Amino acid sequence: MCNTVAVTRARWTSETVPLPPHALAWLSQRVGLGEPLPEVPVVVPPSELTEDAFTALEAVCAVSVEDADRLGRAGGLSYLDLLRHRGHGELAVPDAVVQPASPEEVLEVLRVCVEYDIAVVPFGGGTSVVGGVEALRGSKSAVVALDLAGLGRLVSVDPVSRVAVLQAGITGPEAEKLLGEHGFTLGHVPQSFERATIGGFAATRSAGQASSGYGRFEDMVESVRVATPVGEWVAGAAPASAAGPDLKQLVLGSEGLFGVITEVSVRVRPRPSAPRYEGFVVDGWEAGVSLVRSLAQAGALADITRLSDVDETEVALEMAGSKADLVKKYLRLRGVKQPCLVILGWECRSRAATVRALSGRKVVRLGRAMGASWLHGRFNGPRQRDALLDAGVCVETLETATHWSRVSELRDAVRDALVAELGNPVVMCHISHAYETGASLYFTVLVPRDLGDPVGQWGRAKAAASDAISRLGTITHHHAVGRDHLPWLEKEIGAIGVEVLRAVKERVDPTGILNPGKLV
Amino acid sequence: MCNTVAVTRARWTSETVPLPPHALAWLSQRVGLGEPLPEVPVVVPPSELTEDAFTALEAVCAVSVEDADRLGRAGGLSYLDLLRHRGHGELAVPDAVVQPASPEEVLEVLRVCVEYDIAVVPFGGGTSVVGGVEALRGSKSAVVALDLAGLGRLVSVDPVSRVAVLQAGITGPEAEKLLGEHGFTLGHVPQSFERATIGGFAATRSAGQASSGYGRFEDMVESVRVATPVGEWVAGAAPASAAGPDLKQLVLGSEGLFGVITEVSVRVRPRPSAPRYEGFVVDGWEAGVSLVRSLAQAGALADITRLSDVDETEVALEMAGSKADLVKKYLRLRGVKQPCLVILGWECRSRAATVRALSGRKVVRLGRAMGASWLHGRFNGPRQRDALLDAGVCVETLETATHWSRVSELRDAVRDALVAELGNPVVMCHISHAYETGASLYFTVLVPRDLGDPVGQWGRAKAAASDAISRLGTITHHHAVGRDHLPWLEKEIGAIGVEVLRAVKERVDPTGILNPGKLV
Repeated sequence: MCNTVAVTRARWTSETVPLPPHALAWLSQRVGLGEPLPEVPVVVPPSELTEDAFTALEAVCAVSVEDADRLGRAGGLSYLDLLRHRGHGELAVPDAVVQPASPEEVLEVLRVCVEYDIAVVPFGGGTSVVGGVEALRGSKSAVVALDLAGLGRLVSVDPVSRVAVLQAGITGPEAEKLLGEHGFTLGHVPQSFERATIGGFAATRSAGQASSGYGRFEDMVESVRVATPVGEWVAGAAPASAAGPDLKQLVLGSEGLFGVITEVSVRVRPRPSAPRYEGFVVDGWEAGVSLVRSLAQAGALADITRLSDVDETEVALEMAGSKADLVKKYLRLRGVKQPCLVILGWECRSRAATVRALSGRKVVRLGRAMGASWLHGRFNGPRQRDALLDAGVCVETLETATHWSRVSELRDAVRDALVAELGNPVVMCHISHAYETGASLYFTVLVPRDLGDPVGQWGRAKAAASDAISRLGTITHHHAVGRDHLPWLEKEIGAIGVEVLRAVKERVDPTGILNPGKLV
Repeated sequence: MCNTVAVTRARWTSETVPLPPHALAWLSQRVGLGEPLPEVPVVVPPSELTEDAFTALEAVCAVSVEDADRLGRAGGLSYLDLLRHRGHGELAVPDAVVQPASPEEVLEVLRVCVEYDIAVVPFGGGTSVVGGVEALRGSKSAVVALDLAGLGRLVSVDPVSRVAVLQAGITGPEAEKLLGEHGFTLGHVPQSFERATIGGFAATRSAGQASSGYGRFEDMVESVRVATPVGEWVAGAAPASAAGPDLKQLVLGSEGLFGVITEVSVRVRPRPSAPRYEGFVVDGWEAGVSLVRSLAQAGALADITRLSDVDETEVALEMAGSKADLVKKYLRLRGVKQPCLVILGWECRSRAATVRALSGRKVVRLGRAMGASWLHGRFNGPRQRDALLDAGVCVETLETATHWSRVSELRDAVRDALVAELGNPVVMCHISHAYETGASLYFTVLVPRDLGDPVGQWGRAKAAASDAISRLGTITHHHAVGRDHLPWLEKEIGAIGVEVLRAVKERVDPTGILNPGKLV
């Protein structure tokens, strides 16, 4: 009872990047290393998909109940997911993987799943770090992962309007390759870029590293095509409209609860001819926040605008090894007491405008080598997590956004909450998405893993930090809600907000097959 | 049985601007004048609000059942509205006007209206041109206009984040005055600016004349506070968020169907220190479209970017009278065969960037006098409509937006539809809102009025034009749906889109008191 699934996606685990010796030395001294986690074998439960349901699904598209395929779609890539795949915590494994090859087949799969009362978890790159693709079955008899890898076509390009229609299963690099053949770029490069998909970007309101220039993913979307249990829904049409509420904005961020996004029409731009990335340093976090705010409010942001706090800057320089010694010496010579690294990158925006806005401000230029160094390592974070786990380190990230007047208060509150819960963690923070009215804050936490209760250790820290975040900002700026942020959602959107989401959900997914246990 | 309503809003009628002699002469020759419409007295039906309901409402806030107050909130300012107020067509007059003075009082009014089963039409500036504030009662026993003039406070200003909270009843000029005291501007200046309100801007997804610089109104909104029959709903929080769908975008454009917007938190900007407006001419519509598109796609738009077609340019020059003779001569000398006027204005954006993008393009500069002339007359359109009616001319506007690759096809299709229906109308068109992927199109139609059936004459023309619009663009770029665009909404948002709106409506307004007969 098995039908080949075209692409078996590997987990990050197989792409792990080892930590260099100087990094291990720093970790040992600053964070502290722990014992490797005992490997507990992962048991894949037998598929509970019935023979009838399998046959009905197989009549539509490729289906697999192989352990390896199912395990490959069991959850995302959060720290807790990594622990679960090492046998710690409860791993939810889908009963089957289905892989439709067209929007029409997605509709058909949903029809079958309604008929057989099977839960459906849309699965793109599987990079959720908030439990967004956990294979929960809710009240259903079985749950399938609906893998979108078969929806990989560039459907159309309108070079005059600069609009392209991309299918949902296209990954970041694939999108750039397909659009590049027409001279265009999407410019959407989140850290998950290498394997996250167009559908996932849309379903989670993703924000790329160059969001200051290209906008958040939702800013690029002209329309979305969605397969729902009640039929096909196309939301969005013109470049702008007053034809009622913007329903496209209801699909964006719906995390597979309202339907499966099958195609996305996006605004594209010409490929940058001479991208340029530079490093700068300011003295102290407040000076950095003030600098980024002034750039944002003057309309002079670089496409990539990133400010690290003192701790993150220290780690970045440590990780650069001996190469960074000259930089540290130079900064001391320039009298910089609390170096905060600023990375600016120009792809489509005017560098001249940023440079003009920087003039007269106390900024130390480190030049293009530092920019190149950031660019080189921009996707490394997720890949090093397994190596950190092996070194006995708990590593996870948190993120939020708030208005400028609360940015520093929020940063302090999150740090305080993490310290209170974890003892003596290393907490690094950066701003990587700036707006006229505020900015994102992104935290990376490192702490020796609690061997006795690694799941509980992070669970408590996450809850404490989320309480702080929820008090002063949004519970998530670009990671989405999933299962992990659910307890804080109602505080943010209110009881009526939750009711509105439920009303929409009940209308488009009356039997509740879509992605149970997430968002609402 | 009457309680004073604080502000009796006058209709445009009292602010009408007479047509200068040369305009009348041009109209007579080019359009043709008709007989003034026979004045049919408007009969105000007696209020059907019950004594009990009146008493219950009066316990909350000011209420009036005076004919003048009710007539002043009977519909908006479309051509059909103007005809209705002259006794042609059916005028829907609310049974009372209620004027709460706080968000809490609005909630209370809704509670009373649910209890007494009374329909509620939120009423701001009353400038809807699509029947959005028609006092329809649906299945209810009575209908009240909920006048928001009492919600006129600037609630707060956060100068660091550049965010201000404005109450819904504040008009455009009032907002600028209140924010100006803090050195800020909203920069939202639609043609209805002088009397339209913050709540109305939000409820209809308004776009101002400087939308290229400041964005559409929805782009400025951080959050909205809404009174609904099931309680208060605050949608939106952080500058950006991935905490589920953007529910704020569901309130924006909801046209009073989901609740009464009571406060709006908006992004503000410093007041421009040296605004500058200039006129240019290009030779031919296609050259103009190409120019505006290139500015939009290069990120070099002026804040105000407006391109008139040949017909609109001709009328603009005619209306300028003898002052324009020199311009016409100059254009002939420069070999311009089909002059299309371009108005560019810089308030917050960089003029240098636009000028750089213009270099090498065939553009005739007319200088700042032409810019000043546009600025001077920017709000005149609505004020001249009564004078045109008096001259026997049917005058109305239509608008849409589409992608660049269809802009000219859409313009031609609308013109053709209007000509087929109206004989020999003057149809003028301009682009006034440009995006990377497309632009708005705004049409002004002038034709001698059909004395026998003035309502039917425009109704048929509107339907024919709307069919053409609906085929190639959005049914409305910034006028909203109201009652008039309702027949074309489902084609645009689909059956599921309509169902989603209904689902939300039923959840937040279970008895259906809010603005019946509009949007869904």
